[in-house]
Amino acid sequence: MTEIHPDVEPLKAYLGKWRGKGQGDYPTIEPFVYEEEAEYWHVGKAFIAYAQKTWNPTTGEPLHQEMGYLRPKSDGTIEIVIAHPTGIAEILEGRYYQNRIEAETVSVSLTLTAKDVRRLRREIEVVGDRMSYVLSMAAVGVPMTEHLRCELRRL
Amino acid sequence: MTEIHPDVEPLKAYLGKWRGKGQGDYPTIEPFVYEEEAEYWHVGKAFIAYAQKTWNPTTGEPLHQEMGYLRPKSDGTIEIVIAHPTGIAEILEGRYYQNRIEAETVSVSLTLTAKDVRRLRREIEVVGDRMSYVLSMAAVGVPMTEHLRCELRRL
Repeated sequence: MTEIHPDVEPLKAYLGKWRGKGQGDYPTIEPFVYEEEAEYWHVGKAFIAYAQKTWNPTTGEPLHQEMGYLRPKSDGTIEIVIAHPTGIAEILEGRYYQNRIEAETVSVSLTLTAKDVRRLRREIEVVGDRMSYVLSMAAVGVPMTEHLRCELRRL
Repeated sequence: MTEIHPDVEPLKAYLGKWRGKGQGDYPTIEPFVYEEEAEYWHVGKAFIAYAQKTWNPTTGEPLHQEMGYLRPKSDGTIEIVIAHPTGIAEILEGRYYQNRIEAETVSVSLTLTAKDVRRLRREIEVVGDRMSYVLSMAAVGVPMTEHLRCELRRL
């Protein structure tokens, strides 16, 4: 059993595996639904590792995935680093209080062939054995707009 | 069994789990040795997912870890996105030929409290059941200098 780092302690409710359903929408695409599995894990250092994947509920076809790290600080701020297979890297900064995290990108980095994503905002909350998140995005000429909304339950 | 995406086919020798030993050095630190386990996996889309972790060979204490994605293109170029728990995100671009990848950061993004890493170069090679890599880094005022060298065997 890994001892929980003091900086991670306030967000220990995140640790574990989660599964749920989400819906996506954006002015440039058709609305869609997805299923998601996410894992948040800890190795005793001052971060939480995070990985998720989503799939089409009907066909099982993989849709999105992403992986990264949450770095909560004892002053209530949090830094988040996330890599996307679509050629996007996010650096987010924000705050957490109780089990709610609100963070916004301070930088979005793109590979040459990545879509033009400019800013992302992530709100994530754990209440008991339920997790929910909302992801908003400014991309491809569209200002910050809600893109994903998902509810998960602890596995 | 996932069908391998045509863009990933030339690098399919990377897929699997790897374990080995490495050594680290840099002008600002004491040289050190480490053990590493790495995994490269594929879900049928145009990327390879990648995660690794290292630990102190004597104490077993976790040292580094990172996760990200390799995006090989059919023209022999490759894009790589990597997230670090130390608050660093890398976007690399480069080339591969046979089973050798050479890529260099086109951007390094940092959270507020991350170390001042400016550029990274990664050379990774698979020969049969052996993988090796060299990571060079320009950071904390030091120009591009070899930092890590590791040899792994397929598990």
